[in-house]
Amino acid sequence: MRRFVADKAKTLINRSRTTCSSSSPITTSTSVLQRLTSSSSQSPAVLRFLSTSSDSMASDYSSTPVTLNNVNPKVLKCEYAVRGEIVNLAQKLQQDLKENPGSHPFDEILYCNIGNPQSLAQQPITFFREVLALCDHPLILDKSETQGLFSADSIERAFQILDQIPGRATGAYSHSQGIKGLRDTIASGIEARDGFPADPNDIFLTDGASPAVHMMMQLLIGSENDGILCPIPQYPLYSASIALHGGTLVPYYLDEETGWGLEVSELENQLKTAKSKGINVRALAVINPGNPTGQVLAEANQREIVEFCKKEGLVLLADEVYQENVYVPEKQFHSFKKVARSMGFGEKDISLVSFQSVSKGFYGECGKRGGYMEVTGFSPEIREQIYKVASVNLCSNISGQILASLVMSPPKVGDESYESFAAEKEGILSSLARRAKTLEDAFSSLEGVTCNKAEGAMYLFPRINLPDKAIKAAEEAKTAPDAFYARRLLNATGIVVVPGSGFGQRPGTWHFRCTILPQEEKIPAIVSRLTEFHKQFMDEFRG
Amino acid sequence: MRRFVADKAKTLINRSRTTCSSSSPITTSTSVLQRLTSSSSQSPAVLRFLSTSSDSMASDYSSTPVTLNNVNPKVLKCEYAVRGEIVNLAQKLQQDLKENPGSHPFDEILYCNIGNPQSLAQQPITFFREVLALCDHPLILDKSETQGLFSADSIERAFQILDQIPGRATGAYSHSQGIKGLRDTIASGIEARDGFPADPNDIFLTDGASPAVHMMMQLLIGSENDGILCPIPQYPLYSASIALHGGTLVPYYLDEETGWGLEVSELENQLKTAKSKGINVRALAVINPGNPTGQVLAEANQREIVEFCKKEGLVLLADEVYQENVYVPEKQFHSFKKVARSMGFGEKDISLVSFQSVSKGFYGECGKRGGYMEVTGFSPEIREQIYKVASVNLCSNISGQILASLVMSPPKVGDESYESFAAEKEGILSSLARRAKTLEDAFSSLEGVTCNKAEGAMYLFPRINLPDKAIKAAEEAKTAPDAFYARRLLNATGIVVVPGSGFGQRPGTWHFRCTILPQEEKIPAIVSRLTEFHKQFMDEFRG
Repeated sequence: MRRFVADKAKTLINRSRTTCSSSSPITTSTSVLQRLTSSSSQSPAVLRFLSTSSDSMASDYSSTPVTLNNVNPKVLKCEYAVRGEIVNLAQKLQQDLKENPGSHPFDEILYCNIGNPQSLAQQPITFFREVLALCDHPLILDKSETQGLFSADSIERAFQILDQIPGRATGAYSHSQGIKGLRDTIASGIEARDGFPADPNDIFLTDGASPAVHMMMQLLIGSENDGILCPIPQYPLYSASIALHGGTLVPYYLDEETGWGLEVSELENQLKTAKSKGINVRALAVINPGNPTGQVLAEANQREIVEFCKKEGLVLLADEVYQENVYVPEKQFHSFKKVARSMGFGEKDISLVSFQSVSKGFYGECGKRGGYMEVTGFSPEIREQIYKVASVNLCSNISGQILASLVMSPPKVGDESYESFAAEKEGILSSLARRAKTLEDAFSSLEGVTCNKAEGAMYLFPRINLPDKAIKAAEEAKTAPDAFYARRLLNATGIVVVPGSGFGQRPGTWHFRCTILPQEEKIPAIVSRLTEFHKQFMDEFRG
Repeated sequence: MRRFVADKAKTLINRSRTTCSSSSPITTSTSVLQRLTSSSSQSPAVLRFLSTSSDSMASDYSSTPVTLNNVNPKVLKCEYAVRGEIVNLAQKLQQDLKENPGSHPFDEILYCNIGNPQSLAQQPITFFREVLALCDHPLILDKSETQGLFSADSIERAFQILDQIPGRATGAYSHSQGIKGLRDTIASGIEARDGFPADPNDIFLTDGASPAVHMMMQLLIGSENDGILCPIPQYPLYSASIALHGGTLVPYYLDEETGWGLEVSELENQLKTAKSKGINVRALAVINPGNPTGQVLAEANQREIVEFCKKEGLVLLADEVYQENVYVPEKQFHSFKKVARSMGFGEKDISLVSFQSVSKGFYGECGKRGGYMEVTGFSPEIREQIYKVASVNLCSNISGQILASLVMSPPKVGDESYESFAAEKEGILSSLARRAKTLEDAFSSLEGVTCNKAEGAMYLFPRINLPDKAIKAAEEAKTAPDAFYARRLLNATGIVVVPGSGFGQRPGTWHFRCTILPQEEKIPAIVSRLTEFHKQFMDEFRG
């Protein structure tokens, strides 16, 4: 039966590949699986919109003009599992628990579906918040009480930042790329990180990394014939953005057996296949450290990737938002720009975009929506087009811009805040490393589960060897086997994970993504709930 | 000669209309005019990106893969004049002035191109900033010094808001539509404004109004056959967004002679014409109060518009971001939702989206990127699609969300901040009204210039009857006549306005948009500089 589903998925993938000029292979295969899962999830998602009219049926809207038949088909095609059906169910259960405590076999929902550290009680870095508050309300900067409330270096930094903003106006639209002085700070931070020059005119500040990724997809995708090479598994922002822009996702599979290795031979094969189908592959997206896989690329591997992009004329889209999240001593983050420059490739040799976000790192300031992309190796005419697209939305939010400058230029030895800052940072990162290890060990000890190490990022992506009987039950429930497992897990334990089918996976394999973010003191309980659930699940379906 | 240009523009418009199924009539006509202007503006825009390699030529990038020939053609088509060539020139002149004071016949650049009040020294509303600072750094809420620095009601409000945020985590991603408690506050504010119920589940908080407009365009536009009725002149976010999403802008002309009146007969004619060309018109965009025109629609007119949308099955996209900017006693803002509900149209009778922003109003918090759309009259399935698209970007920034709740729920009589808040608000709005009147009178007194009243919003859109000789000179300079005038104005006075061709205008008429935002004490100097320039310009070209 497992083979049946796997074969079915393969057939669907192959079928879509043969007609690939009109649809993305992986998007199609993913959405096929997701369509299977969505029928059972329809109700909670729909219910959420009907609080004032819960008796309504869709047909009551028959006189309104927009229907599933005339909405943009690209929107229909787009999927985003990180906030998909399992999360909708979780929100419903949370509401249940609030209204009827004791109505489920757990007393809280544990959101392990999304890299959102502060939602799980991680505290913000004090220095960053001090500076943001002072920039929000500069009138207090000169008041004596302020000295007692804020660190001296946060006050000094707020003054410096305000001096960089024309008219000190934190409430004004900035330059479309972001405030020049903040881009100077970020460029210096990149130089310090890489040991190679960075130009503030290459920096585009954005509301988190997502809009930056959309901007590049918008630039590169003109039609379904334009393809983007994306890792499988991948963070579904990529598949969603490619679907919304009407392009084709060209998958390359990461090799689970070698710790989610990225093989250039796989890139070459997939590129060749895509080309033979008339796809014009424009770019290679690489997520390093990996999401959902947690792998950190070796420098030698990065060099091969740069060579490949150079040789094949591909833009290298480097998602480097987890650059500060590396947990193993044997690995280190190297930016693709540093790697390319150290190979002797200059500004005019390779087109490279690096994405960074304030949502990740040890600070995890997701709600601030700050980030930037560093755009190198594009001609002035193309830069002008990127600038124009940025201009249509005027600018990113100024608090996010300020925070992006702070994370690239934190307190230094000798600053008043340095010690407390360093302690906060070290406390978070070492705890994340411990949590990653504990959860990895827990997953690995489960029957039929293998789990690669989280070298970096914020996730584990364990593989579950599901019994045939479970796969059959999933099919009967019209859901993907991994979604079936995730749903059972949620209903039994309150733990929210994302099924692997939301990220893509080799046909016939099943995974889920679980963040390493729950509070450390809760981890033992999570491990025991999970272990108990898994044992019962396997007992129920073990053949 | 003027007729020649006008005829040429008309021919181009007609030509594009006859082939209209493959391109937008107005986008094409606009971009034709803008293409005329762009050759002369190429250099400053390009120069801005070359600070580290100013000797580079585009050809040096010959080995990079992205070129104007293979970039997404929709991006090439998109134009956004509010930050276009004149602004690029202004930034260059500003740099000149910094490096060589006295190098131009003025000592500062006056940015009247964009509704960005705080960039022109408008101060933020104190209460709003107090609350934002406290939410950014809640650790100080309990400190005794805080009582001395912040108003009691801002502290109380910050506590209330933090209580509405799960885990008090202002650094966490929120629900994709925004924090539920803040949406409750906004819905109450809408109810208080309209006297009709509002549902928090209808609110989608966004990073300013622009992403909300993009989201709706993305939903409605599947191909170039999908059309959106847009006013001409229009705020170019609409033309840009339609171009980026590959749809067709179906223009309807506002009637300058009747104070930029919106005639339903014009809507009917344009709809008919578009239909006859195979365009499937999906929505009507209305900007009220008007941008760039400043008109405030009469309620009776709004009723006709609602009737028209209902009859023709169009989504009504109501840009209501200037709802608090009305300057004349004879006009009042009415939301389209209030108008529709007062006509008896309920949730299931009409599809209506209202856009609001924290960038406008009397607060002008552009840099905070806060806003929302209220989405009514869409079936649950379609709402789910909108929710999915919102989810892909996770959420809007939390400070912007908080601010959106504050502008819809400001201090009330009896609150500690009420008097200072009311004084700040009244001070700004009355000053804006005076500035609007002074500038309107100044424009109207110029030779060959007529200027409608700014009833609302932040702009005047005077019409210039340019002498034939000026039109000829513009043609020789390969620029649109209004861009020629705006460029001369900038070079002579440092005043930055946006040529009417960036908004669309009746062929053969020429305008520019000028904000009413310069500091009041600077207005007399602006008027005299402008008057002197205009006199000299007319003397030079009067023929």
